[in-house]
Amino acid sequence: MKHLPDTIRAVDWQHDCLHLLDQRQLPLRQEILKLQTVQEVTKAIQDMVVRGAPAIGITAAYGVVLAARSAYVQRPTDWMAHIETDLHTLSKARPTAVNLTYAINRMRALFPQITGNPVPELLAEARLIHEEDIQANYRMGELGANLLPNPCRVLTHCNAGALATGGYGTALGVIRTAFAHGKLQQVYADETRPWLQGARLTAWELKEEGIPCVLIADSAAAMLMRNGLIDWIIVGADRITANGDVANKIGTYSLAVLARYHHVKMMVVAPTTTFDSTLASGNSIIIEERSPHEVTQLHGHPIAPMGIKAWNPAFDITPAELIDVIVTEKGYVEHPNSTNLASLLQ
Amino acid sequence: MKHLPDTIRAVDWQHDCLHLLDQRQLPLRQEILKLQTVQEVTKAIQDMVVRGAPAIGITAAYGVVLAARSAYVQRPTDWMAHIETDLHTLSKARPTAVNLTYAINRMRALFPQITGNPVPELLAEARLIHEEDIQANYRMGELGANLLPNPCRVLTHCNAGALATGGYGTALGVIRTAFAHGKLQQVYADETRPWLQGARLTAWELKEEGIPCVLIADSAAAMLMRNGLIDWIIVGADRITANGDVANKIGTYSLAVLARYHHVKMMVVAPTTTFDSTLASGNSIIIEERSPHEVTQLHGHPIAPMGIKAWNPAFDITPAELIDVIVTEKGYVEHPNSTNLASLLQ
Repeated sequence: MKHLPDTIRAVDWQHDCLHLLDQRQLPLRQEILKLQTVQEVTKAIQDMVVRGAPAIGITAAYGVVLAARSAYVQRPTDWMAHIETDLHTLSKARPTAVNLTYAINRMRALFPQITGNPVPELLAEARLIHEEDIQANYRMGELGANLLPNPCRVLTHCNAGALATGGYGTALGVIRTAFAHGKLQQVYADETRPWLQGARLTAWELKEEGIPCVLIADSAAAMLMRNGLIDWIIVGADRITANGDVANKIGTYSLAVLARYHHVKMMVVAPTTTFDSTLASGNSIIIEERSPHEVTQLHGHPIAPMGIKAWNPAFDITPAELIDVIVTEKGYVEHPNSTNLASLLQ
Repeated sequence: MKHLPDTIRAVDWQHDCLHLLDQRQLPLRQEILKLQTVQEVTKAIQDMVVRGAPAIGITAAYGVVLAARSAYVQRPTDWMAHIETDLHTLSKARPTAVNLTYAINRMRALFPQITGNPVPELLAEARLIHEEDIQANYRMGELGANLLPNPCRVLTHCNAGALATGGYGTALGVIRTAFAHGKLQQVYADETRPWLQGARLTAWELKEEGIPCVLIADSAAAMLMRNGLIDWIIVGADRITANGDVANKIGTYSLAVLARYHHVKMMVVAPTTTFDSTLASGNSIIIEERSPHEVTQLHGHPIAPMGIKAWNPAFDITPAELIDVIVTEKGYVEHPNSTNLASLLQ
């Protein structure tokens, strides 16, 4: 099976610090930032050095290691109390992805049993979270690819690839596996305004691996569907509620409506760490609104008149009834609802 | 009634040459190009110095004047035969808008009755085409605005404004009139990738006149509709076939499907010069595919990996059944079809 070599992993722990591939610079530059403190990690998540719900979770786990390391040096006996403020700030770095909270809580659950230097145990746990994510992606890749016809033409939105996860990817994991199985005829990648994750990241990942990819403006997707050129839409998720509503990159909901109208199938691929069973439906999900400058400027250059207002929601909610299948590492559910998702997740 | 002052008209004949506001430079710079030859006019249309179906038609009419002027100097007795090659090239500058052909044919129809220097008569006709377009826009503005509720929240796509026409605008003409009537609460403007007509041109026109405008990424429109924030979508057209199918900027079809799903109304505003009764349906319209670089680069900077393929259709087709009303200067038709459109146009 083909996958990205470790050297271009987005998140990595090396030489006692956290290495992040700066995704703001892709595809023009492959620049690695080396982070030594949890404050740097929080800022990197806020500034989208790293993005994608699973990758944010993994990054936060390593952030907890850095927080504990620093606190332990300063206050060896009460480092746990000392880092709570940092962890709270880290957990609020971005509001929509639940993986962030999941990873911090899982790391925090270890604290009571730790004696002495917390770094070895916490680092082992962060590495485990990372490795589990990659393994989940391989598993989802197989499950999702088996659902696709042969040959298959797919459309993906944003980047749910190696760069958005521990490695391999969720939606792109399915696409990678389908390609490895020889059934993938064509991938269309939405450029995904305003941050251009599709143009900058997904197109880059697919091109690196020789998977046939055509880039389109987001608004051209409907015409592809009308022309009968898309069999499945495959996307990731930032949070999935108990009833199967999906928060994902702005534009996902639009695609889901268009897919239903054109009888195109809609697949959401996400590890169980993305599920938030505490929320009954997508109506309760906080949608992050990012700076209007992401819409009105590009690379610092204005592309709209000075002072114009812009509305820049980072995510939207796709209701469960528009989703044909949700694929997780524990299996998949068709026509997701509270009952079949609860069975899957228990 | 408010309208843009003449000084920022996109197309203008002054001091014996054609002045075009270079729309590629907006909103950063207001640069006027002064064209002396039909070859320059053809290139300006191809390169999108001027764009928008009615503006292209008017520009072409002035282009015929320049062609005739040059030919008459060189060959006073057979200038008509001499300019046919130029007019053919001009008519092919862009394939989708029918106004281009309409304007050239209307100018050419005068040739047989011209004796001596053709410039005065041709210039008068070009000015008439220009003035008729502006008057049509005022009329459509009134007709369309009367169809809107009070208060009204609208979404527009691309730029169908003063810049796309002789002045005042088609879709933006309706929006201007509704604003003048005090019933316009909010305009949302799709940025309109890849060329960003919405961000660069529509946002600029609306801001210049103090009409409340919020810019969004194209893919955020569905969420606005889901949130109940849009009453009408109002767009222009590049060509309308006998049955009411509409070719317009890529993304229009997507909006029309989303509008129907969310019970939002869809209005197309276009002068009768935009109608092509020779085509039975939108299936026969040639859709211009422009350079992939419009998707993969911005201001010459790459925004996607080198060598990635991109599909860049400039327009899409919205079938008549998704359009609630087509407004022309001769009146409007609801639920457009071959019969009611033929009655309107006769």
